[in-house]
Amino acid sequence: MAKRAGTESPQAPKPGLKGRDQETIKKLVGLAAEVSSRSLRGKEPVIHVPTRSRSNTIWDKRKGILRMGEGKSDRPLFDLKTARQFMQTMLHASTIKELIEAGKTSSLRGVFYKAKHTVAGTKENTFDTQDESDPILEDLEVTLGALREELHVFAENRGNLVGNITVIDKGDEINARRMGSGGWGIPSIVEPDVIQFGKCEAKFVLHVEKGTVWARFNEDRFWEKHNCILTHGAGQPPRGCRRLLQRLNQELKLPIICVLDCDPWGHYIYSVIKQGSISLAFESSRLAIPEAKFLGIRAKDYKECDLGEAVKIDLTDNDIKRANEIAAYPWFAEDARWQREIKLLLNNGFKMEVEAMINKGISFITETYVPERLKAKDWLE
Amino acid sequence: MAKRAGTESPQAPKPGLKGRDQETIKKLVGLAAEVSSRSLRGKEPVIHVPTRSRSNTIWDKRKGILRMGEGKSDRPLFDLKTARQFMQTMLHASTIKELIEAGKTSSLRGVFYKAKHTVAGTKENTFDTQDESDPILEDLEVTLGALREELHVFAENRGNLVGNITVIDKGDEINARRMGSGGWGIPSIVEPDVIQFGKCEAKFVLHVEKGTVWARFNEDRFWEKHNCILTHGAGQPPRGCRRLLQRLNQELKLPIICVLDCDPWGHYIYSVIKQGSISLAFESSRLAIPEAKFLGIRAKDYKECDLGEAVKIDLTDNDIKRANEIAAYPWFAEDARWQREIKLLLNNGFKMEVEAMINKGISFITETYVPERLKAKDWLE
Repeated sequence: MAKRAGTESPQAPKPGLKGRDQETIKKLVGLAAEVSSRSLRGKEPVIHVPTRSRSNTIWDKRKGILRMGEGKSDRPLFDLKTARQFMQTMLHASTIKELIEAGKTSSLRGVFYKAKHTVAGTKENTFDTQDESDPILEDLEVTLGALREELHVFAENRGNLVGNITVIDKGDEINARRMGSGGWGIPSIVEPDVIQFGKCEAKFVLHVEKGTVWARFNEDRFWEKHNCILTHGAGQPPRGCRRLLQRLNQELKLPIICVLDCDPWGHYIYSVIKQGSISLAFESSRLAIPEAKFLGIRAKDYKECDLGEAVKIDLTDNDIKRANEIAAYPWFAEDARWQREIKLLLNNGFKMEVEAMINKGISFITETYVPERLKAKDWLE
Repeated sequence: MAKRAGTESPQAPKPGLKGRDQETIKKLVGLAAEVSSRSLRGKEPVIHVPTRSRSNTIWDKRKGILRMGEGKSDRPLFDLKTARQFMQTMLHASTIKELIEAGKTSSLRGVFYKAKHTVAGTKENTFDTQDESDPILEDLEVTLGALREELHVFAENRGNLVGNITVIDKGDEINARRMGSGGWGIPSIVEPDVIQFGKCEAKFVLHVEKGTVWARFNEDRFWEKHNCILTHGAGQPPRGCRRLLQRLNQELKLPIICVLDCDPWGHYIYSVIKQGSISLAFESSRLAIPEAKFLGIRAKDYKECDLGEAVKIDLTDNDIKRANEIAAYPWFAEDARWQREIKLLLNNGFKMEVEAMINKGISFITETYVPERLKAKDWLE
């Protein structure tokens, strides 16, 4: 994405800011400079916001990522349809500048509250609900070409990590080999100025869907026996968890191997880890892991592992609809193995959860299923 | 609660089990021995399950905890109404014995799947859904007089901890002063054989409602400046988090000071931390912290802190209903200060979230609000 920063900026970034922050402040000041210079020249201030719609999303097959097209929409100040959003964008830009300069971060909700007030002399609120606030932040992300995390805004932290790696978190050395049953909490912001990687013996990352499954693998010290890192994202992994996995993949060249439920939700989680979400294509290049692998649970496992009736949960109508939608995602649509996988799920007529494997023994999943599949490199990509 | 363990047990617990586990196995074997000895004497096997109803819940004002009354209900095998539950209770008891003897733990969902199967020669499932399984585990808790965690069954882990303490988690030394921005993930099972406390300088625990608020306090290194431990439970704290807070309170004599939203949900969270949930009175003595303190947000803060309109969120009809219900809880009903607090919330007509305090400045909550209230010992109990 093109940088909007300008050397014409009337206000230089504060000294002492770190590289990434200095860059972001430059972009913010560039945005403000354009607005003010147009105003001073007697022209209407306007912001050009790249369009975050599905129609402006391009599947870049060669690179294996989603990216945004060139579509932009203007947000002029003197237009009843956009004046409110113009004001909101400026308010959030101002909060972000304050956050970066103070060296602090804020939650999405905090940013909303920071900007929320009644406009003097009116009964009009700048923001009524957070639902109005979050999309404006996404607009700023794409307009500035900076991730939300680079704007110093975080979401709820979710997920844990243990394994054969040392992580430096805000200067503290986290020895993930000695994190007991609880593990290290994966923060919401894991950019390189906050999180660095120290010594790492691990050869891959095993990412599981739920905290309860993670606890099973951790209790059986799977990461020690198989020399890996073990993570979970408490369901659909939040951006912090995905970004961390991407950095482990790109910087340390570790394969990311997922163990998720055999149902459309599990497939969707894998899809988001692999390619990002279609409606948020702008984040794809910073969050997607095109070479992530789906190890299981596979639709064939019912027969192959000789599982009992007890593991079956009937597919609902909505599951069937979702399965067909996911099968049509561009990265699955042209992949014969994924087409077969989803077809077999639909033919089976039932889904299976990772936890159902306990039916074959408490540690069947950690001692038999995953090791065998790893050895055979039996996974989908 | 009376122990059901018997020296008449035909099967001694396996050697090598730790104290707590040995005790639990004794109780399990005692239960089984009673069933089998009645059978061998030609009598109908029956389990006596303490009643987990509100009517069998007693508010012990002197001790400041909820406890169960003497009510029990019989669960005979030869009764169409209870035969299924009898079988389910035995199945889960058997899974728990297997877990303890293997030195492993399982999730609630895992225990459900472990026991779920089709009864041979019939189309009858032992369990149809997890909704049927969880209450049977609660029955076992009260029947055996053992917490779920002592039965080796865990739930989702939620919440994080940082601060001036060293925690030993399964033999790993967690220096909570060096846990970066992520913190240590609080496990679901924090019983003394898993989690021990090492060196602790902290003088109190600050427990906040949400991970996002926790991140604000951690970023500002509140725990370092005020020599405390900082925890959150991602909303209503799960049992692991509550039990850990109780242990910090009872064993290390640390006051537990809560910063929660000023709304019925915040009050309810405080109530559960303080006294436990009315419908699960049996856990109260092992989880409740009668002397926990509610520091804020207080209904008076709108005026006292000169907050703007922006912090107000209108109370809904359901909020008003919940506020009145909570005001009637025995530990609030006789407390004049709590009555005033809830009345003022209702008079205000609006609720306020901790995160709204950002309106007064990014770090107003950590640098001004909480320190001032702590100094003045201005809290509710």
